[in-house]
Amino acid sequence: MPIQAALTPQMTADEINDLLKRVYPQLNDDFASYRAVEVFPGGCIVRLDADHRHLRPGGTVSGPSLFTLADIGGYVCVLSHAGPDALSVTTNLNINFMRKAEAGPIDGHCRILKLGKSLMVYDIDIVAGLDRHTVAHATGTYSIPPRRTTSG
Amino acid sequence: MPIQAALTPQMTADEINDLLKRVYPQLNDDFASYRAVEVFPGGCIVRLDADHRHLRPGGTVSGPSLFTLADIGGYVCVLSHAGPDALSVTTNLNINFMRKAEAGPIDGHCRILKLGKSLMVYDIDIVAGLDRHTVAHATGTYSIPPRRTTSG
Amino acid sequence: MPIQAALTPQMTADEINDLLKRVYPQLNDDFASYRAVEVFPGGCIVRLDADHRHLRPGGTVSGPSLFTLADIGGYVCVLSHAGPDALSVTTNLNINFMRKAEAGPIDGHCRILKLGKSLMVYDIDIVAGLDRHTVAHATGTYSIPPRRTTSG
Amino acid sequence: MPIQAALTPQMTADEINDLLKRVYPQLNDDFASYRAVEVFPGGCIVRLDADHRHLRPGGTVSGPSLFTLADIGGYVCVLSHAGPDALSVTTNLNINFMRKAEAGPIDGHCRILKLGKSLMVYDIDIVAGLDRHTVAHATGTYSIPPRRTTSG
Repeated sequence: MPIQAALTPQMTADEINDLLKRVYPQLNDDFASYRAVEVFPGGCIVRLDADHRHLRPGGTVSGPSLFTLADIGGYVCVLSHAGPDALSVTTNLNINFMRKAEAGPIDGHCRILKLGKSLMVYDIDIVAGLDRHTVAHATGTYSIPPRRTTSG
Repeated sequence: MPIQAALTPQMTADEINDLLKRVYPQLNDDFASYRAVEVFPGGCIVRLDADHRHLRPGGTVSGPSLFTLADIGGYVCVLSHAGPDALSVTTNLNINFMRKAEAGPIDGHCRILKLGKSLMVYDIDIVAGLDRHTVAHATGTYSIPPRRTTSG
Repeated sequence: MPIQAALTPQMTADEINDLLKRVYPQLNDDFASYRAVEVFPGGCIVRLDADHRHLRPGGTVSGPSLFTLADIGGYVCVLSHAGPDALSVTTNLNINFMRKAEAGPIDGHCRILKLGKSLMVYDIDIVAGLDRHTVAHATGTYSIPPRRTTSG
Repeated sequence: MPIQAALTPQMTADEINDLLKRVYPQLNDDFASYRAVEVFPGGCIVRLDADHRHLRPGGTVSGPSLFTLADIGGYVCVLSHAGPDALSVTTNLNINFMRKAEAGPIDGHCRILKLGKSLMVYDIDIVAGLDRHTVAHATGTYSIPPRRTTSG
């Protein structure tokens, strides 16, 4: 599968996590469940440490929890590659749930498919379990606000 | 727009809310933010009472909160029209975010597009604000598990 | 379901069909299979007269034929409501196929969900058969190019 | 990105093309524009040789032509990996169009994300041009009919 390797990240995973904590406190409340673990040219890896709070009937990780990971994956891509403007927003997200995931570390492997001036398109493979099988896959679009010129 | 009016609900909104509270306690934790407000032939209305916990950077209701409402809307459709099997699961959900929504009551108008033996397809208009404008729209598919035969 | 009734179409169905014939001859080749039948505030109705050329294995109307109708429905919405700029393009389309459709007239009921400066979001119910049941449903986004200023 | 390498194809690209020609003559009419070029464990590559018939206003390859390639890619995946039952049908397809493609060979790289008894989920990267950049990406679901038992 093609990778947009020509892209260059402008922030590290640690810088992203600091930014998320500051601008999006609701994401993790008391516990740091969602975080960036790696940022690389053209993509990133994000992680959900799923516990009982993320489960649904049947004892498996809920759809909204996996959606949140998919959404955060795109947010980390856009923050790291287009600059730390917290006001980028999701305009579309399509997710397929394929296998049940149990509590534990769940990783989202994100790939930027297109980084334009006003839109970023990406996809994410969400893997879980000892054999890291794919439990969900999503494709999304973020709208990037026009760069604000700063005057002094 | 066509409506599947031939369908007949088998549970009321109150019965659904009791079921949700029992089988899916993680959904609302301490506060009953998500609930069914109406069930009618071929669809339902669900509500999120959005407060500061549902906001994202910019002070608007987050994508995951609206996704959860869209997902719950399908869950209420399948529970009310195909019977109270809590193990029905989302297999696909596509959501478009169109306008920002502020904290307050957010309603999801759900319509069953197809109710088959093993799959239900539905869409949902999510409206908010004083003028009830559409803030998001989603389409989803639920997988309905085979009916378990009871012996005894 | 909410309707964007405040929107005002700027072209009729006949004007749209003339425009399609001129700028998009590949659409219908020798036969006028795809056309606008009605344009109204906030939406439109498009039709495919499906014959043997539009069938797939099993003798039912093919997915690509229904996708084309869904795509054309959005194109007619954007042309009629945002002005006759033929260069608007689809950026995303999600389609669910729910029932088989046989050859014959197939209608797409389109609704504009959002008409912004650079993006239009819409959905479409595709109905067929004597009882006009829903055979497919799609949601799509069109990108509207910046208005070109003409100088003289 | 994870690959379902444990899967084993049961048909070659040539066998698939023969089957397509026989059961789906409408696909290519007089010209073999759409075809399988490779089948491998867990996926396939399909090709559209785009000419003037596949263009839309602006002189670029039309959305329906790329959708057809994405749909055929899933069809080749399901035929090659689940057996030659021509009656498998698409139930959902979500496609993002990211860059314009000119006439010429356009390749779809398909990957099976899940192959279950009754459903197959896959995604496809569609690449074009001298630098083979990604012009579109799609995710889809095929419904696989129950295996017919043959008696003799």
